[in-house]
Amino acid sequence: MGRRIVIIGAGAAGASAAARARRLDPEAEIVMFDKGPFISHAPCGIPYYVGGVVKEAADLAIYSPEEFARERRVDVRINAEVTEIDLRSRTVKVREGNTTNTYQWDKLIIATGAKPITLPVEGSDLKGILTLRLPHEAPVLRAEVERARVVAVVGGGYIGLEMAEALVNLGKKVILFEMMPHVLPTTFDEDMAKLVHDELAKHGVELHLNEKVVGFSGVNGEVRKVITEKGEYEVDKVVMGVGVRPDTDLAVKAGIKLGETRAIWVNEYMETSEPDVYAAGDVAETWNLITGKRMYIALAPPANKMGQVAGANAVKGRFLKFPGVIGTAITKVFDLYVARTGLTERQAREEGFKPVSATIRARTTAHYYPGGVQVSIKMVADEPSGRVLGVQIIGPDKIVAGYIDTAAALIGRGATIDDVFFADLSYSPPTAPVWHPIITAARVLSKGRF
Amino acid sequence: MGRRIVIIGAGAAGASAAARARRLDPEAEIVMFDKGPFISHAPCGIPYYVGGVVKEAADLAIYSPEEFARERRVDVRINAEVTEIDLRSRTVKVREGNTTNTYQWDKLIIATGAKPITLPVEGSDLKGILTLRLPHEAPVLRAEVERARVVAVVGGGYIGLEMAEALVNLGKKVILFEMMPHVLPTTFDEDMAKLVHDELAKHGVELHLNEKVVGFSGVNGEVRKVITEKGEYEVDKVVMGVGVRPDTDLAVKAGIKLGETRAIWVNEYMETSEPDVYAAGDVAETWNLITGKRMYIALAPPANKMGQVAGANAVKGRFLKFPGVIGTAITKVFDLYVARTGLTERQAREEGFKPVSATIRARTTAHYYPGGVQVSIKMVADEPSGRVLGVQIIGPDKIVAGYIDTAAALIGRGATIDDVFFADLSYSPPTAPVWHPIITAARVLSKGRF
Repeated sequence: MGRRIVIIGAGAAGASAAARARRLDPEAEIVMFDKGPFISHAPCGIPYYVGGVVKEAADLAIYSPEEFARERRVDVRINAEVTEIDLRSRTVKVREGNTTNTYQWDKLIIATGAKPITLPVEGSDLKGILTLRLPHEAPVLRAEVERARVVAVVGGGYIGLEMAEALVNLGKKVILFEMMPHVLPTTFDEDMAKLVHDELAKHGVELHLNEKVVGFSGVNGEVRKVITEKGEYEVDKVVMGVGVRPDTDLAVKAGIKLGETRAIWVNEYMETSEPDVYAAGDVAETWNLITGKRMYIALAPPANKMGQVAGANAVKGRFLKFPGVIGTAITKVFDLYVARTGLTERQAREEGFKPVSATIRARTTAHYYPGGVQVSIKMVADEPSGRVLGVQIIGPDKIVAGYIDTAAALIGRGATIDDVFFADLSYSPPTAPVWHPIITAARVLSKGRF
Repeated sequence: MGRRIVIIGAGAAGASAAARARRLDPEAEIVMFDKGPFISHAPCGIPYYVGGVVKEAADLAIYSPEEFARERRVDVRINAEVTEIDLRSRTVKVREGNTTNTYQWDKLIIATGAKPITLPVEGSDLKGILTLRLPHEAPVLRAEVERARVVAVVGGGYIGLEMAEALVNLGKKVILFEMMPHVLPTTFDEDMAKLVHDELAKHGVELHLNEKVVGFSGVNGEVRKVITEKGEYEVDKVVMGVGVRPDTDLAVKAGIKLGETRAIWVNEYMETSEPDVYAAGDVAETWNLITGKRMYIALAPPANKMGQVAGANAVKGRFLKFPGVIGTAITKVFDLYVARTGLTERQAREEGFKPVSATIRARTTAHYYPGGVQVSIKMVADEPSGRVLGVQIIGPDKIVAGYIDTAAALIGRGATIDDVFFADLSYSPPTAPVWHPIITAARVLSKGRF
């Protein structure tokens, strides 16, 4: 029997780490614990289950624990909550059913993920204030909102917007509160976010911007009102979408170092401050390839990749390096696809760049080909160097995903405005205009150079 | 009055050159000649006009000559055929109506485009053997095929396939001849092209591979039969799609140097062998960014960019450089989007690389999100260096365009398999699986590294 790899958390990062460790080391003993009943769970799918697009909550997981255990030869322990990491004895304590067991590890991978932020305001513990956590809780969430007529959504980030759409699809009256002047406040510039405001209004979402929720009040322990700086609103349920924070409780208790973002500090090998202890996914810190600075981002694709790196390095030493992220993300808000990569104009300015930007509207097909739609693209570059820093794209066609990935590929590899202009992108009348929208954005941004 | 820029040809490259020269030099006198009645014409749109997707042939042009002349302050001469370039006297002779006029130039831009290859076989001058040339001829082409019941398409390249679809849409019986073992013989590997064969068969196209057309026979000067090495086929019309070659007649007569591909030799500034003479677009040679070798490619996006470079440099000296191409292209064949970039596996081997490849099938959405479809992706890399050399993608969703552009952006900037794996691409359940299909291809190609 080989060394024992213990993995805490069986979400994207944990499951990826387990699979990778097994692939690279057929001898290792791999034990993966999850406090819930699912593994490789996809919290990103919850809004689609709540809104009825996905019929079964169990569909949100890629593997059943049994399949994963069999196919990967991993000892998968579900409903098993790790309660303590002991670095000196190299053990974890695990609550399984009514007993607490101790497991020894040679390598430990912490993949405990993130948890929803709760507002530190009066009434936030009332019943009927709901959060999205894990797929197995989704049926409860859905049953709760199904009985409601009016639902408040607190927070205009990705989860808040996706839940607003899901609730409208269920026929609910939705009131969305965002304390900042626009939705997606940390990921989009205001000029672009306004397109999302219009889409929300078009679908009947009552949008309250610049309006901070300061409390909740209830009757018999059940929430009945959202209280903001500006007023009070009668609601039947509240869905919280004010963001997540890394679930570092175990790591902190064990004395593992956190980074400046309060996620677990890791280097590019996903090594923590402690020997033989790795962290990956939403619990771990990452860094921005453009600024070089540490950042926290809780998204499944980097979580999967960080998991792969941690799993590989746990069995092979310094075998893989995680290069960092540029913050590519996409969501769907009713009929709009809303995508971004790199830095917004505001972020670029805050980071000390001298940003210039161009915003264009472009068609998704040749002008004469039927079915094309208009998408909006904002491109941000650093004026002195010409380096493209970020792109935001919003439009009613899934091709927005393709455009943002193209932009992400270019930005991630240091492209300048000239490089984007000359990128050899595809063209045919049904699929693009002859000047590709991303290239048109670069042309406009070049201020006459092209 | 500034210097006089003369541009021969008002297609993609010529019109782009004119627009760019004007923008960068408000004083220059710019004269653009085209032998046809349209400018900024889009031959790529002709199949969609013939098939009835586009209603008016005039819609295929972006600008009318009058608009372009007015907005760009360019002297646009349509129905004006340049018959001679004189390098010594720096003049061109132009047939306009019944007269031939001589125009002096300070800078000359040759953008005469490409012309269809005609087969040197018996009967190839019969009536009813049709070629796609310029949009203003499209109504004639359409009227001709409308009367037919059985139409042969000769050549299984992009134009041949697009015309086959257009003809099926018009209710014609289509027989497609390709002398090579598979369609798209120079741009796709056989294993991928087979997916196109299936799609053609599904839509009733009678596909004859490995079958060279050796002649045509007719009655009263009208084509009636296609004669191949293997048999004879009764047809009403024939559409030729055996490719194009650069229309270099004027350049050759003037003594301007051709490159090894028989297109006009140009450097990265679009300068020809002769001082103050530029060439751009389908008449000019380009080079492959991956192999560094000279190549000929007749596609609108590089033509536009070469035009921009020629137009800019004609007025500003060595202001812009054209970096070359990687051969990105896409077409639609019935319900399939068929796209490629870089080198095929066969090309990679011929160019002296040691290619490895992986072919995957991947879904376009999260597994639980409805509406996802499967696409096929083949990725080719150089084994010793890990550099990704090419990608081919085929599937029934327009997102194929987004995937190929993402791959093109990565390949164009020298990405290795590792770089592709770690590219920060977007994810949301409606738009992609959590492992993006391009990343999955890189994973499989990494042979266990990821």
